[in-house]
Amino acid sequence: MKEFFEECRQIIDRQLDKLVPAADVEPTRLHEAIRWSLFAGGKRFRPALVLAAGRTFGAPDTKLLCTAAAIEMIHTYSLIHDDLPSMDDDDMRRGRLTCHKKFNEATAILAGDALQVFAFKAISDDISLTAETRLRIISELAAAAGTPEGMVAGQQLDLEAEGKNVSIETIERIHRSKTGALILASARAGAIIAEAEEAELRAVSAYAANLGLLFQITDDLLDITQTTDVLGKTAGKDATAEKATYPGFYGVEGAKDLAGKVHAEIVGSLENLDRDLEILRQLADFILLRES
Amino acid sequence: MKEFFEECRQIIDRQLDKLVPAADVEPTRLHEAIRWSLFAGGKRFRPALVLAAGRTFGAPDTKLLCTAAAIEMIHTYSLIHDDLPSMDDDDMRRGRLTCHKKFNEATAILAGDALQVFAFKAISDDISLTAETRLRIISELAAAAGTPEGMVAGQQLDLEAEGKNVSIETIERIHRSKTGALILASARAGAIIAEAEEAELRAVSAYAANLGLLFQITDDLLDITQTTDVLGKTAGKDATAEKATYPGFYGVEGAKDLAGKVHAEIVGSLENLDRDLEILRQLADFILLRES
Repeated sequence: MKEFFEECRQIIDRQLDKLVPAADVEPTRLHEAIRWSLFAGGKRFRPALVLAAGRTFGAPDTKLLCTAAAIEMIHTYSLIHDDLPSMDDDDMRRGRLTCHKKFNEATAILAGDALQVFAFKAISDDISLTAETRLRIISELAAAAGTPEGMVAGQQLDLEAEGKNVSIETIERIHRSKTGALILASARAGAIIAEAEEAELRAVSAYAANLGLLFQITDDLLDITQTTDVLGKTAGKDATAEKATYPGFYGVEGAKDLAGKVHAEIVGSLENLDRDLEILRQLADFILLRES
Repeated sequence: MKEFFEECRQIIDRQLDKLVPAADVEPTRLHEAIRWSLFAGGKRFRPALVLAAGRTFGAPDTKLLCTAAAIEMIHTYSLIHDDLPSMDDDDMRRGRLTCHKKFNEATAILAGDALQVFAFKAISDDISLTAETRLRIISELAAAAGTPEGMVAGQQLDLEAEGKNVSIETIERIHRSKTGALILASARAGAIIAEAEEAELRAVSAYAANLGLLFQITDDLLDITQTTDVLGKTAGKDATAEKATYPGFYGVEGAKDLAGKVHAEIVGSLENLDRDLEILRQLADFILLRES
């Protein structure tokens, strides 16, 4: 799995490098800021999922690269904005200073804005895909990144839930929007590009919805059990900010149990597919067992 | 012209209302913030330009509405982010409190992010247009909103130029990106939807490039000559923030002369078109003579 992620990182980073202006293009400070956050050594989990789902259903990498890179740009923009002082107020991300700490707040806001628009431009310009496929992916990705069911809605709800005792339904609603929607869109985009059949698309959607949930549970657990050094971002932040989390509701052991159950469901959702599912299964194992 | 703008406002506001979630949909505070800024009674100049250019070259309004509304969403998101404390730090906009003053910074950042993504979703979902037309508009609009030649780049350069003695070339570069690119994209989108011929598209592009310049010169002048009450935003802000402006470089009288010359060029760029050009000419007159 490490090899798969390393391979993904290399091809995605090459693609991202082509899609954003060089650091010496004016306004240089903006482009340096974009590159600072984009090439900070993230896991590239979402693009890896685009590639994994796309390959599983038979798409060549050439058709998957732009969409995978676009989704990473959306994800990175959301990290830059989430880290701002008025939001989660974080100084470290991906093992280095956050964008607004390295540059300044205005530049960080603009770098995020630019990354979001680059994502949609990349897909609209991707001539390896039919016009219909590009539009479908743009539309699904926009819904996943926006509101009321997407990432922006999730971040708003997450901020509003700080310091409150919220129900498990609210925790689920927050994370399904904030983290889950984009993870679901990643897997679906890969399958759509591969022209997977409707039943296959449904199965991979069920897989990815639970994968997003598992990702969030393990993310919450790592915030408690790992160090800032290993995570590359401030550990223990959820407790300090009184965030709505799974271990906060179920306790650490309860959240670990839930992670195991969700993992079993993930594996189960792939059962009836007549494809080589090794990579999708390994991805789920990786998320269950990840240490950063 | 007032009637045209009033008509535009009504049909654009109806379209915008359909495209964003109702204020009682969760997260309600986010949707209230989006609507606070979107329905604050802006001039709707950019959507009016989409309609004017589109109608001139024969497109029915039904095909123009989504794109016009999308461009207004991009414009409104940029106002929300530009008004933030770390950017231009403004308390008033369109005659009411800015989004971050009325709500808070985090909500304002997210409302802007959501408006940008709604814009691209609206166009990708607009079944009145062919897939190719939608993709072309998304791509052009993304370039106009982004960097290195679009709105985000212009805002970055504008912030970096504060307090400096900059050349007229720099002033032009800032405003061509910050204001001009989206105005140009508005006129082009209307003409593209109307399937204008290449020569017509070139002519309307020349028209709109200068219209954007005229808009900025008169904007700079109004900041000096008008009151906060009339403008609906803080007057005299450019001087306080030591912004790079046309009257700052040429003086008020010099900038007025320049506005007259640019207006003459705008009218000239339409000369060889065999269409009813009344509305495009009136738009240029309106921008030259506007008082807010």
